[in-house]
Amino acid sequence: MTSSNSTGSLRLAVIPGDGIGQEVTAEALKVLDVASPAAVKFEQTRYDLGAERYLATGEVLPDSVLGEIREHDAILLGAVGGKPNDPNLPPGLLERGLLLRLRFELDHYVNLRPSRIFPGVASPLAAPGDVDFVVVREGTEGPYTGNGGALRVGTPHEVATEVSVNTAFGVERVVRDAFARAQRRPRKKLTLVHKTNVLVHAGSVWWRITQAVAQEFPDVTVDYMHIDAAMIFMTTDPARFDVIVTDNLFGDIITDLAAAITGGIGLAASGNVNPDRTAPSMFEPVHGSAPDIAGQQKADPTAAILSVSLLLDHLGYADAAAAVERAVIDDLAAREPGTTRRTSEVGDAIAARVS
Amino acid sequence: MTSSNSTGSLRLAVIPGDGIGQEVTAEALKVLDVASPAAVKFEQTRYDLGAERYLATGEVLPDSVLGEIREHDAILLGAVGGKPNDPNLPPGLLERGLLLRLRFELDHYVNLRPSRIFPGVASPLAAPGDVDFVVVREGTEGPYTGNGGALRVGTPHEVATEVSVNTAFGVERVVRDAFARAQRRPRKKLTLVHKTNVLVHAGSVWWRITQAVAQEFPDVTVDYMHIDAAMIFMTTDPARFDVIVTDNLFGDIITDLAAAITGGIGLAASGNVNPDRTAPSMFEPVHGSAPDIAGQQKADPTAAILSVSLLLDHLGYADAAAAVERAVIDDLAAREPGTTRRTSEVGDAIAARVS
Ligand SMILES: CC(C)[C@H](C(=O)O)[C@@H](O)C(=O)O
Ligand SMILES: CC(C)[C@H](C(=O)O)[C@@H](O)C(=O)O
Repeated sequence: MTSSNSTGSLRLAVIPGDGIGQEVTAEALKVLDVASPAAVKFEQTRYDLGAERYLATGEVLPDSVLGEIREHDAILLGAVGGKPNDPNLPPGLLERGLLLRLRFELDHYVNLRPSRIFPGVASPLAAPGDVDFVVVREGTEGPYTGNGGALRVGTPHEVATEVSVNTAFGVERVVRDAFARAQRRPRKKLTLVHKTNVLVHAGSVWWRITQAVAQEFPDVTVDYMHIDAAMIFMTTDPARFDVIVTDNLFGDIITDLAAAITGGIGLAASGNVNPDRTAPSMFEPVHGSAPDIAGQQKADPTAAILSVSLLLDHLGYADAAAAVERAVIDDLAAREPGTTRRTSEVGDAIAARVS
Repeated sequence: MTSSNSTGSLRLAVIPGDGIGQEVTAEALKVLDVASPAAVKFEQTRYDLGAERYLATGEVLPDSVLGEIREHDAILLGAVGGKPNDPNLPPGLLERGLLLRLRFELDHYVNLRPSRIFPGVASPLAAPGDVDFVVVREGTEGPYTGNGGALRVGTPHEVATEVSVNTAFGVERVVRDAFARAQRRPRKKLTLVHKTNVLVHAGSVWWRITQAVAQEFPDVTVDYMHIDAAMIFMTTDPARFDVIVTDNLFGDIITDLAAAITGGIGLAASGNVNPDRTAPSMFEPVHGSAPDIAGQQKADPTAAILSVSLLLDHLGYADAAAAVERAVIDDLAAREPGTTRRTSEVGDAIAARVS
């Protein structure tokens, strides 16, 4: 594990995954290649994890592979998830066994999802304003822990539970990370999103810890919003947000909405970050594997390419990260409405703009 | 309990509640008065439940009052919730002790929330299309049961849990109700919204029961969408939805988004329906008590008035219900952008249009 480098060799685990994951990852790597500082070499290890491997071997993420991945400096992931209703693929198995397992095992407690409306990009909102916020989604607890179970399955007396687990340890570290990010941004504003009026136990620990950590960041303005109210502000005044911190499930929901209002999930990048650097962080587009358009060169690789920018930034290459982002912004501004380009054409165009 | 009447006397429990709840309820009652069939008399009992009563007496919903309310034919509720950060008002206490307690005790398992873009109403979406759907939100289980708890509260070792409880009994009855509603609508389409790839136990019972009940409604088209994907479609193609069925928390979230994209929570009505009529159903606007604008005649009473339309429909007065809705539609179409009216002026205008 290397935390920040100016020269040298870095080990990158590449997991293209399923569906369009393959295509968008190819373009992301193309851009990584031209954007990396001259003195830095990414040694790539490719892992064929995903639906195909599972269907062929029954393996989702063998412990030995996880152990290997752990030895890398970062992970680039495309998308995970097989064809819907494939009878040989239990629903959610890959998402949980591969994607979520990596997030949990590698302690990706900061799921970082920036949202900006880039110049030239159309929003479905009539008047979105100047949108530039980042969601810090907790990544290792909440309703995603797999706790819960079912009794008398398939009978009229079935009872199924899902348990959201929230620890002071887990909440405090992600809240502190979110405050630190807010402090580094011009507006220095943090919004906690939860549902404290109904989910009182979880809500209480999130609320109290946010208040407590706020003391350490007196220059950051804090407010609170219920998740339902956040839906309204996200569509009527998204420009008000700066840093949002929230739990795993609310973060899942709000970041897809954020992606939608800022031009679609074709543009939404994310980092599954382990800020303590005890394991490699993982970068991936927010979108899924979109099996319906897979292999047709129809997918927009921009989100995967922006994830490369987050990856470079995380590894300490701020200039290279900024160059990728600038190249994307320039490409977006030059896109002609009504024309479509192949996945590889978009990758080529952005790679060509990286300077 | 009376289920459907053409003449006679009906008992209506009125709970204006807190903040703007008082003002919007006054207008709703004004419209109910002119809209009710001549031969029907609503005997109103007013209940001063809410923040003031709690602060004065410590009472939220005494059992004796609940017993009285139970003897009514329907309930009209304004909004519940005190001033934020009132040190004498534990957060969420009124919402849970009054609003949710009524929903649970009176078995309001169908939380009905229609969403339409009425003519003349501006949506924050640039091109929303022809939006007309209804969300059937489960109202008596899921993450709203209050199950869960906390250990070592206030210490670095705190663990807080929230348990979502989902029963075959509870899921099946609301899913069946949603299918029946879909069957009565021209498009006959039902969309299950959940997060089956992560919340596997709860997701599985929702999924299986939806598939099973679908057999009884062969003319209804069924599809499924993850809650995060639903965020995207709700902003990019909301016209695709007809009937959405979902759990209590997802329903809370999606209906505020639905309200936002169809012109705001000033227009969103809801019914907490007990379809078995073993207890009175309750009708209320989706919006909250908005303490910041309370008592200033600034609130839009339209959502409360549309809730009266749902109430009349539930009680069997389809014509009166339609007349209220028509009056609202006419008023909305006649609203002049940029002008504001007092709460009572909106109520007067709509009441005057009821024919
Ligand atoms: C695929 C799924 C498990 C995942 C999640 O729910 O976290 C995805 O929606 C995301 O947001 O990365
Ligand atoms: C006030 C709150 C408890 C309530 C809920 O979460 O159900 C409200 O948001 C609603 O949607 O009616």
